Amino acid sequence: MQGTPDRPSSAPDDRWRILRTQDDLDRLGETESIFALSNGWVGWRGTLDEGDPCDMPGSYLNGFHERRALNYPEDGYAFPQLSDTVISAPNATLVRLWVGGEPLDIRIGTLRTHEQVLDLRAGVVERVTEWISPAGQGVRVRSTRLVSLPRRRVAALDWTVEPLDDAVDLRICADLLANERVPQRADDPRAASIVHDPLIAERHHVDGADGVLVHRTEHSDQRVAVAVAHRPSAPDQIAISTDATPDRIRLTLAGTVAPGERARLTKYVAYEWVPVDGTAAVDLADQVTAEADAARETGFTTLLAEQRAALDTAWRTADVVLEGDEELQLAIRFAMFHLIQAGRPDGASSIPAKGLTGNGYDGHVLWDTEQYVLPVLTYVAPGVARSALRWRYAHLPQARERAAELRLTGATFPWRTIGGQECSGYWPAGTAGLHVNADIADAVLRYAGATGDEKFRAGAGLELLVAGARLWRGFGHFTDDGGFHIFGVTGPDEYAALVDDNAFTNLMARRNLRGAADAAERYPEAAGRLGVDPAEVAGWRAAADAMVLPYDAKRGVHQQAAGFTSQPEWDFAGTGDDDYPLLLHFPYLELYRRQVVKQADLVLAMLRCPGEFTAEEKAANFAYYEARTVRDSSLSAAPQAVLAAELGHLDLAYDMFAESVLQDLLDLGDKTGDGLHLASLGGSWLALVQGFGGMRDDRELLSFDPRLPDRIERLAFSLCWRGHRLLVTLTTEEARYELPDAPADTAVDLWHHGEQVRVVAGTPVRRPMPQVPDFGAEPTAPPGRRPTHRAAAV
Amino acid sequence: MQGTPDRPSSAPDDRWRILRTQDDLDRLGETESIFALSNGWVGWRGTLDEGDPCDMPGSYLNGFHERRALNYPEDGYAFPQLSDTVISAPNATLVRLWVGGEPLDIRIGTLRTHEQVLDLRAGVVERVTEWISPAGQGVRVRSTRLVSLPRRRVAALDWTVEPLDDAVDLRICADLLANERVPQRADDPRAASIVHDPLIAERHHVDGADGVLVHRTEHSDQRVAVAVAHRPSAPDQIAISTDATPDRIRLTLAGTVAPGERARLTKYVAYEWVPVDGTAAVDLADQVTAEADAARETGFTTLLAEQRAALDTAWRTADVVLEGDEELQLAIRFAMFHLIQAGRPDGASSIPAKGLTGNGYDGHVLWDTEQYVLPVLTYVAPGVARSALRWRYAHLPQARERAAELRLTGATFPWRTIGGQECSGYWPAGTAGLHVNADIADAVLRYAGATGDEKFRAGAGLELLVAGARLWRGFGHFTDDGGFHIFGVTGPDEYAALVDDNAFTNLMARRNLRGAADAAERYPEAAGRLGVDPAEVAGWRAAADAMVLPYDAKRGVHQQAAGFTSQPEWDFAGTGDDDYPLLLHFPYLELYRRQVVKQADLVLAMLRCPGEFTAEEKAANFAYYEARTVRDSSLSAAPQAVLAAELGHLDLAYDMFAESVLQDLLDLGDKTGDGLHLASLGGSWLALVQGFGGMRDDRELLSFDPRLPDRIERLAFSLCWRGHRLLVTLTTEEARYELPDAPADTAVDLWHHGEQVRVVAGTPVRRPMPQVPDFGAEPTAPPGRRPTHRAAAV
Repeated sequence: MQGTPDRPSSAPDDRWRILRTQDDLDRLGETESIFALSNGWVGWRGTLDEGDPCDMPGSYLNGFHERRALNYPEDGYAFPQLSDTVISAPNATLVRLWVGGEPLDIRIGTLRTHEQVLDLRAGVVERVTEWISPAGQGVRVRSTRLVSLPRRRVAALDWTVEPLDDAVDLRICADLLANERVPQRADDPRAASIVHDPLIAERHHVDGADGVLVHRTEHSDQRVAVAVAHRPSAPDQIAISTDATPDRIRLTLAGTVAPGERARLTKYVAYEWVPVDGTAAVDLADQVTAEADAARETGFTTLLAEQRAALDTAWRTADVVLEGDEELQLAIRFAMFHLIQAGRPDGASSIPAKGLTGNGYDGHVLWDTEQYVLPVLTYVAPGVARSALRWRYAHLPQARERAAELRLTGATFPWRTIGGQECSGYWPAGTAGLHVNADIADAVLRYAGATGDEKFRAGAGLELLVAGARLWRGFGHFTDDGGFHIFGVTGPDEYAALVDDNAFTNLMARRNLRGAADAAERYPEAAGRLGVDPAEVAGWRAAADAMVLPYDAKRGVHQQAAGFTSQPEWDFAGTGDDDYPLLLHFPYLELYRRQVVKQADLVLAMLRCPGEFTAEEKAANFAYYEARTVRDSSLSAAPQAVLAAELGHLDLAYDMFAESVLQDLLDLGDKTGDGLHLASLGGSWLALVQGFGGMRDDRELLSFDPRLPDRIERLAFSLCWRGHRLLVTLTTEEARYELPDAPADTAVDLWHHGEQVRVVAGTPVRRPMPQVPDFGAEPTAPPGRRPTHRAAAV
Repeated sequence: MQGTPDRPSSAPDDRWRILRTQDDLDRLGETESIFALSNGWVGWRGTLDEGDPCDMPGSYLNGFHERRALNYPEDGYAFPQLSDTVISAPNATLVRLWVGGEPLDIRIGTLRTHEQVLDLRAGVVERVTEWISPAGQGVRVRSTRLVSLPRRRVAALDWTVEPLDDAVDLRICADLLANERVPQRADDPRAASIVHDPLIAERHHVDGADGVLVHRTEHSDQRVAVAVAHRPSAPDQIAISTDATPDRIRLTLAGTVAPGERARLTKYVAYEWVPVDGTAAVDLADQVTAEADAARETGFTTLLAEQRAALDTAWRTADVVLEGDEELQLAIRFAMFHLIQAGRPDGASSIPAKGLTGNGYDGHVLWDTEQYVLPVLTYVAPGVARSALRWRYAHLPQARERAAELRLTGATFPWRTIGGQECSGYWPAGTAGLHVNADIADAVLRYAGATGDEKFRAGAGLELLVAGARLWRGFGHFTDDGGFHIFGVTGPDEYAALVDDNAFTNLMARRNLRGAADAAERYPEAAGRLGVDPAEVAGWRAAADAMVLPYDAKRGVHQQAAGFTSQPEWDFAGTGDDDYPLLLHFPYLELYRRQVVKQADLVLAMLRCPGEFTAEEKAANFAYYEARTVRDSSLSAAPQAVLAAELGHLDLAYDMFAESVLQDLLDLGDKTGDGLHLASLGGSWLALVQGFGGMRDDRELLSFDPRLPDRIERLAFSLCWRGHRLLVTLTTEEARYELPDAPADTAVDLWHHGEQVRVVAGTPVRRPMPQVPDFGAEPTAPPGRRPTHRAAAV
């Protein structure tokens, strides 16, 4: 992209660029997700400017959705009757081009060159295409897109066309288009539910070259406004006109462009949505128009500079240096880029499972956010983690109502939602997944511990912890032997449901109960306002202390849930490669009752609650469950990587890490077209930091027990800890801990391999790398289910 | 109904008549179900002839249905995508009347008298209404309906109108009406799914006063034809005309009827349905036309005589004499009448849960049939039981396919169906209810044992038993301790799901395994043709012998399923009367994980497999589960009655029996309008015969251990046993066993209270009534959930 006069120029650095060319055109949907841009508020899928070919258009606004009815063949009490589903705001990315009357379409004519680049430092997608029409007329099209990180409502597109040789007759139509057709995916329970023509036009207005559309939704009662301010720059002979209908604003440039000339068009776009009973349509139109105008005033060059500056700041903490494997170095940066841009630090908004990169899972937020994304963002962008937790807090009243509807105590947060209501249409794997409440509590405790944010801890944090503790205390029960049990719930593993004493749920509930008790004792006055008294706190502690962790003494392993190890084994010998993912080829009747694990469950418990297990128990458990875990979920590889690393199976850990971080770049699950797997991308950071860095955060201080696989020569990452950036650098010889940005006498205490050390600003602490633990040979995976050997792949 | 010259006259006997009058008009739907007539092939709901008011019209043909799509909010592998739902054949019961231009409508004008009578011996519904129109013109309308027991395709209606005082101007429209509007019930998971306008007209034809309609369904590919042959009889001044449209054939009689005159119309109706690729429409029309003509030739008087004769034969075995409680004497006859008319002995058709009396449960056949209806019909109408089992056998190929789809061995019969495909839309309570397969095997063993039907036993019976045994052997598994387990299924209690080692399922599976092994050894050649070899049989026996029955040694009770007694208790103190049925007020999340029982489950196991428990175990179990059983299902009272009787709680048993037998006559569940609860009606016979008669059939010979509650002075019932009718008469003093119809030297061996006795024809065996067992005070039910005290009600 060098040489464009009004853009910052720099030598391309392939360690920071994702490139796709004409060789990748058969992966269109995947490419659209990978090149998606977002600022946590607005998301643009990486569709082609000309809009066709397109796998799935998408312009998402965080929280903007429609509602649809859920119909059950056999309904039941408290089955959700409505579900939120993400819908697109009007699409402002479109710049259609006709060359000598032929539409630019890279599938026809001659594609001389075609590149799309995601620049991870600039925060833009650049595109250049040289195309010769079927009639032989050649053009070069360039564009640069950004979704502004500092300006939450703003996105912009800078688009240029020039003749390759002879003068060409051009028509350029820059559209803002509502109710664009979205394709229905084939039958797959994980795909989105499409609502056609969801937007009802309220207002459309054109002013010169600019325009605004206002629509509302039919059922979710939301209003959305999009304004486009155009800056065309074209030879004088080019005629410019606009036209508007309720669903489309179009700016048309038409005329002949001579060799050496070019036509350029910059679109400055501003979005906003509000509840329909909020801002009126005309006022909302004015707001976004003003914001688009302001962006145009600012100019594209400045927007680029702002973007770069924002990313420079973000990367200081978020970057991970991984030397020894260029592909994965780039992949982890790609992962971190998408995590950075998925959330915003300044409000109460969450991060859907696909971010704003696609409509998979109907655009819902799931427990993935608290267990796979916030454990990363807490350390690299704590303000974003706080925003996501404040979003949960904002929906606490709904969670309390839902608990009351379910005849439960405390609060039950939805398994999947956009607007805060439970949207799960299959309760055994949705509503019964009560662990989401403990996952939220865990994220609260992590955020509070890492930041020391007292205001949050004594306010929203306390209230969330108390609501969770009340749920668990009421839901669980004591048996005659004094044990405290949680029966009839579903843990992380979706090849089991409605089990008793799921180890993950029980341990995380214990963490919630104790965390709430600690917080209530720390802030007695605030707790008192919530009606918490010492007797209630004592009840939480009693339940936590008596919490049962099912164990099979004969096999010497913990049970994922009570009775798990008595279940029949899965017939792996009779299961073919084509039978995966199992959920598409076997009924739940078979999956639920057998010892087959979709995704890390007890292994995730060992990651989140490491102090509850001895090293020997971890080794035995890991081997047992590794042999039964098929990894049909992208949530699985990362926790497996962490435990594999902890137990010294470093090659396995590295291969698991690779699978997690390449999930979307290689479309390993064949679902990337529906949006990126943010949990898998977040998990890849966990695999590095918690796996090879051996970081654990279940105690007062961070601890590290680093061990590097052969392939990694150097691994460096940063963690925000109580307001300071702790930089950890690992090589085969040593671990170095330092506070590069902190004032002179700042000190941070941490654990390194069982030794408590104090890191003082300006004085890096160096320790030799610990011996890699030896728990014998790598455990065996089910046939064909081990991740690809990365060492062999090199 | 005396005095109608051309009908057999008899003094009304209130022990054989169900009467409803104008006082019952607020129970219209209930009345329509109670007065439903059926012959197991054709069913007419007891709607008013004039068709309005009407709660729900219904003219059902066994097996005739439409298919509708099942849509899941979150679909899953092998979730059924289509469901059968019963639809009405064209309605031939309608005779609309206008009096001086006013339509006869009992809600307006003056209703001087209105009676509907179900005559249980004549097998007809008679109706007489004296009505004065708003304009003051009075008429008496009488009608007699029958659905012919000896002629499976034929039903008939004899209808008369006469002036009460002055001459009246009448218009009579006798309709045959397709696609009649059926009301949608309010949201209730147990109601039917209505398909509107399901019939596509293929042919309509009028010939004089007669007509025929042929339609087909859109999705289930069935063709239905209905012919009506009219015999009008009216004064000469009455004009008669016909008219026909694709959905309606109408015969109109219009003119003035003078005092002393009357207009009479007899409708002879014939039905048939076939697959659309079976008989052509024109041929089917000819068939039913000929059948209707033949019925008319026979004449209504002869049809009545045939009906009476058929019922005289049926009642010989089916009647139950219960002296001491007139209400329940009538109620048990009502129950037996509906059981008699629900099935046919001469084919392969089953009995839906509602018979042909309503569209509840979508007209599906459920396990109710094998566990609550066939255990009665095996002894009172064994040919009907055989037909129902042959229907299962006819669907064995589909059951094998379904097992293969579920990746299971053997065969899995549908939880609910009309056409043989699984139609359950909520798999945890449908597909997972695998016990339906053992229930079928149990019914096979019972039928074979009671009849000695070698042809069935060696053919269809063997094949059904083998298919079931193969399912259980493949589905269950051995654990290290040598136990054989069945995990992850749902037993009878619908307030639990996906449990391990449900006692009922395990014991019934054991019965299936052993029954299959016995049958395979008895018919080695036939078994060999099914691929059964001695090793497979040994495998079945090994699994049966090792079958685990979960027991809580501390509490000294069996567990309904593994871990049941460790579950949290239900908060009965916090549950209000309005909270029942619990399923409408609590989520499955709560119901499943707690010790609350919807319906007899372990108690049913103790009834079906009595030899598996000691008397003390039964007493302990009964008391434990009685305290936790809320009887939110009409399937529950009868088995509870049997066990209560066995344990000497005779008042409780009687009250349970009363609840079961009055289920529909008093509409105890507020669902009778959707159709009768045949399982509850069948269960009431079980309560008497197995409860107070103490009959058990799990051994080679029948056994009896009778005990009568105070309210019953004499109880007499018959059982078909190996081709003979065994009459059992119980009084407070003695039990008498005799073979009233058998040839001279016929002998039947049986057990009476542990003594083996031989009953020889002509020589009744008399034994004193055994002492009533004493297991202490009556067990406590959950607050407010004991059935009404019948003794107190007198």
